[in-house]
Amino acid sequence: MKKRYRNGETWDFEHEIGVLGDREVILGLDGGTTSTICICMPIFPFSDPFPDPLPVLSRAVAETAARETLEQVMADALLKSGSNRSAVRAVCLSVSGVNHSTDELGILNWLREIFPTHVKLYVQNDAVAALASGTMGKLHGCVLIAGTGSIAFGFTEDGRQARAAGAGPVLGDRGSGYGIAAQALTAIIRAYDGRGPVTILSSNILQILGLSSPDELIGWTYADPSWARIAALVPVVVACAEAGDRVAHEILQDSVEELALSVKAVVQRLGLCGEDGKGSFPLVMVGGVLEANNKWDIGKEVVNHISKSYPGVLPIRPKVEPAVGAALLGWNFLLKESHMEPCKTSEEWNCTVARP
Amino acid sequence: MKKRYRNGETWDFEHEIGVLGDREVILGLDGGTTSTICICMPIFPFSDPFPDPLPVLSRAVAETAARETLEQVMADALLKSGSNRSAVRAVCLSVSGVNHSTDELGILNWLREIFPTHVKLYVQNDAVAALASGTMGKLHGCVLIAGTGSIAFGFTEDGRQARAAGAGPVLGDRGSGYGIAAQALTAIIRAYDGRGPVTILSSNILQILGLSSPDELIGWTYADPSWARIAALVPVVVACAEAGDRVAHEILQDSVEELALSVKAVVQRLGLCGEDGKGSFPLVMVGGVLEANNKWDIGKEVVNHISKSYPGVLPIRPKVEPAVGAALLGWNFLLKESHMEPCKTSEEWNCTVARP
Repeated sequence: MKKRYRNGETWDFEHEIGVLGDREVILGLDGGTTSTICICMPIFPFSDPFPDPLPVLSRAVAETAARETLEQVMADALLKSGSNRSAVRAVCLSVSGVNHSTDELGILNWLREIFPTHVKLYVQNDAVAALASGTMGKLHGCVLIAGTGSIAFGFTEDGRQARAAGAGPVLGDRGSGYGIAAQALTAIIRAYDGRGPVTILSSNILQILGLSSPDELIGWTYADPSWARIAALVPVVVACAEAGDRVAHEILQDSVEELALSVKAVVQRLGLCGEDGKGSFPLVMVGGVLEANNKWDIGKEVVNHISKSYPGVLPIRPKVEPAVGAALLGWNFLLKESHMEPCKTSEEWNCTVARP
Repeated sequence: MKKRYRNGETWDFEHEIGVLGDREVILGLDGGTTSTICICMPIFPFSDPFPDPLPVLSRAVAETAARETLEQVMADALLKSGSNRSAVRAVCLSVSGVNHSTDELGILNWLREIFPTHVKLYVQNDAVAALASGTMGKLHGCVLIAGTGSIAFGFTEDGRQARAAGAGPVLGDRGSGYGIAAQALTAIIRAYDGRGPVTILSSNILQILGLSSPDELIGWTYADPSWARIAALVPVVVACAEAGDRVAHEILQDSVEELALSVKAVVQRLGLCGEDGKGSFPLVMVGGVLEANNKWDIGKEVVNHISKSYPGVLPIRPKVEPAVGAALLGWNFLLKESHMEPCKTSEEWNCTVARP
């Protein structure tokens, strides 16, 4: 069913709402696999540092990332902020799964149906908004995302980019939450059949899952192919490592090395560390695996590991969410564009796209 | 749809065929995930060694392992051998996925509907028939199966049994064909994003798959979740190792260590090697991964590895197929039963089951 966007019900509220003064706004969207968040932010004057807190006007959330949902969540954010589409200067949409220019163009064309021609549209991979949420909109440095999956993603100021890992479980995403938990489940089977050392992972994980024997893990694993369900066991692995379990400790150590290696590969390829390898660069760290654990802090260990090779690493744990990162990114693109207008045509900027 | 087995069309041929003399037969079935093979063998007098070739009367093949198929393939084998159900002394059915007594009982009850009460019925995991195909029906020793998946399975003469590995890819089945190929794909991604050394696996595998960039492997991998499709790349990995590629060599070496470890865990737990660790025991080796490769022979390396710990290992590559192994197993059960009749009731033997 093709929806008639311009005349659809989604935007009915616009007839009843006037634009408050001449306030222009930016929409920042973070579209994950399970939900979409849209924030609405006014165009504010450049300052360094940015105002704290940032002047976010409104925030809307939806449970899916379908296109109808994206449209609805943008309308909700505008309605809540007392604006309408004529106030929008830019939309920056960051979505997972944008890996090729074809993905991007499809979304840009669809956004173009909703917004007038003068609105600047930017479509990004979700890793880009995650980076921007730590650098306050600046595309420079590296972001390491370690949740169910993991990916390292880097940008230079002159527009080069590189990624490492992020290819999913089949292709050896060992540092991720899924990777950690799958190794823990494997360790239980190995201890059970005599291939590996005894570990308290066995009793602790079986108890959490309500299983009585390691044998039953086989059925449990194949009953539901969701990677997130397996990755949810990471806190148990961390707790076992904190309790002194050697096997759990080694699994986390392996994850640390894998995650650090992803970042180092990106830093190396982009030369983010300068010619002498000692230059400083921001490393934005995002995702459940990197959030402060108690005694065993995976994120801290990853930074320690990286700083042995690159002492200039500046770890950042973002204070704002990725949707705000997306809005800041849109704001930064606008700012850059106004400075660089002579270098690029307006049309080129209307389709600015960062490709992972 | 419940089929009326006793009066169904499947067995119509029995009205037109008489039993040839008083020749009694055994049916051996090997039910894999993609096909089922049934062979029909006469009861022959015990001899050591067995007659070579074995007196197989007929062989029938079907493309699935559904129950209707199993029934049809047994009827076909009997028809081809000029026998009918009244000539059957025993049926030994070996199927993948039989891991619990509930699996076994369901199949036994269903077989009992087809065959008269005096027919002995045996249901086994497919690993048991694979062992029997190497030991000519004797349940003693260890079988190592390494195809798409891998498993080590051992039996002692006094009826104890143990298994190792065989829990599938999520639970770290690294020695398997899937494990080898997934590691090779991972190595390509790692070389591409700077996390790992350059390898000729990249060009060789991409060429076979018709892909132009390692990036495209991500889409290729997730387009089809079949493990067998990935495992089919093993010969390319072997060819790269034979051409001197270090990365491919290390992947195969890792597979060798994993497979040897599975066998050693089983041998250790069952004490197959005797008290001094030097006793001899058969090791039956089955599956594509263990079949003679050219210069790089995974099966040979596995045996070398095991013999360092257990010098009494006697490697066997079966000369008969698993369905024949199943028939020999049925024959052996019958023989044992006639000697041991006073120890067990007939009913118990009618439901003899080997549990992995």
